[in-house]
Amino acid sequence: MRFPSLKQTRFNLITIGYEILDGKILNTNSKWLAERITSMGGRVDRMITVGDDIGEIAWAVRESIKSGVDWIITSGGLGPTYDDLTLRGVAKALKRKLVLNRKALKMLKERYKQLYERGVIPSPELTPQRIKMAMLPRGGRPLRNEVGSAPGVLLRSGRTRIVCLPGVPSELKSIFENEVKPLIEKSLKKVFRVERWFEVRGIAESTLAPRIETLRSGSPDVYIKSHPRMEEGRSMIRLQLISAANRLKTAERRVEKVAESLRRMVIELGGEFSPIEGDVA
Amino acid sequence: MRFPSLKQTRFNLITIGYEILDGKILNTNSKWLAERITSMGGRVDRMITVGDDIGEIAWAVRESIKSGVDWIITSGGLGPTYDDLTLRGVAKALKRKLVLNRKALKMLKERYKQLYERGVIPSPELTPQRIKMAMLPRGGRPLRNEVGSAPGVLLRSGRTRIVCLPGVPSELKSIFENEVKPLIEKSLKKVFRVERWFEVRGIAESTLAPRIETLRSGSPDVYIKSHPRMEEGRSMIRLQLISAANRLKTAERRVEKVAESLRRMVIELGGEFSPIEGDVA
Repeated sequence: MRFPSLKQTRFNLITIGYEILDGKILNTNSKWLAERITSMGGRVDRMITVGDDIGEIAWAVRESIKSGVDWIITSGGLGPTYDDLTLRGVAKALKRKLVLNRKALKMLKERYKQLYERGVIPSPELTPQRIKMAMLPRGGRPLRNEVGSAPGVLLRSGRTRIVCLPGVPSELKSIFENEVKPLIEKSLKKVFRVERWFEVRGIAESTLAPRIETLRSGSPDVYIKSHPRMEEGRSMIRLQLISAANRLKTAERRVEKVAESLRRMVIELGGEFSPIEGDVA
Repeated sequence: MRFPSLKQTRFNLITIGYEILDGKILNTNSKWLAERITSMGGRVDRMITVGDDIGEIAWAVRESIKSGVDWIITSGGLGPTYDDLTLRGVAKALKRKLVLNRKALKMLKERYKQLYERGVIPSPELTPQRIKMAMLPRGGRPLRNEVGSAPGVLLRSGRTRIVCLPGVPSELKSIFENEVKPLIEKSLKKVFRVERWFEVRGIAESTLAPRIETLRSGSPDVYIKSHPRMEEGRSMIRLQLISAANRLKTAERRVEKVAESLRRMVIELGGEFSPIEGDVA
């Protein structure tokens, strides 16, 4: 649901990897990020999944910048292997070169030294594959990865901020919580959300539906959803009203106004209208 | 993984619904469709999720047509409510009008008659909300929905076929299997896939990785993936080789050629190289 007059910080999520396109794994990263962003008061406008292909990654980034979102978050394709192409794709979209980032290199050095000392890898040497993860599009800033090797990356293009995260869920979550969330919070517009539920009895949904449609077109900032159900052979409708605004009072006022219109409409049609308190299953 | 010289029927999957963008539900429809399409020998190039918004739906459809895919499959947004906007979005992308489709209307009539006779709904009447589901972009053909109400829709735009499916997973799967799969199968280019696994011992992955990179750039039609693992304190590498071609012989020959190069390379470096038979966990 979206509210036309609500100002929200807007996000696009880009997932990179053939394993998603081949239907091998579910895109749980996008769901997790969307849930976090939504709960913070941000809004995800698009989710795009493309393959490990520079042109495709660049297309997704360019289209997202064009759509004017505040943030682009990519996941996947940051590792050491030849098919990890995210930073090359982003660089292409931004028409920037990949350059060795000293901070990222230092992070990788520390990481491989640790892994070597713990006996996980046979050598702490920074091979070309490992150095690759420190080659960031010019202007990029590395984001510390506490869980894995590849640092995340933060970039700016005009008013859009671009964050690149690894595809491994534990690494993605860790970098998001530690490094990205604080930055997003600073950029967020305040959003207050109000949700109310009502019960309608004695009216068929087919009678109510066109009336709700009319009501809705006059109140685009209140989301109205009817949930018809059968109860002991009689039809009953649960109505869900949601509004969100940059001020709490505004959201409350909007929901109350629509609820009052609904109440009058239902009573006029000879039905019963009552609020549902507490949680609705 | 993709194989440059393999000719494949290409798909884009478009999911429509704020509930995905808000992180409330996982996009299981796209995974399911991608798995089916991949197993049939097709290839998914992009998955796009947009909200219940005509402009956004039209954008996703237009971009997909522009990319030259053979098939676009949308899911979600076909129902009777005001926020089911898929067909309006598709119509906008194709610059076509929505027109009442007699066949679709007949399907809906039968459906509501059945539901009425089974006592599920109080009236079989074709309300404006129900008729809405028979308003298809001009040239559209309804696809029978055996499980729910909204028919699927099949359209053509140039060389691209567009299929619109409901978002309810059971309805999506039923229409896909009964109505869409047979059409896709007719349009599919034949694909043969060959996969082989090998075991490498006595060489560090950091030594092998750059060699594989070189080998790969000379054999873009063979997918080579190394899976390093520790076994009793010693590093061991599993190599996965996959090729696919429009002829079985071609795929086999390509994999064998790369396997032979790998074998020689490993032995030259003083390691052991052996095929793994059977299933690999």
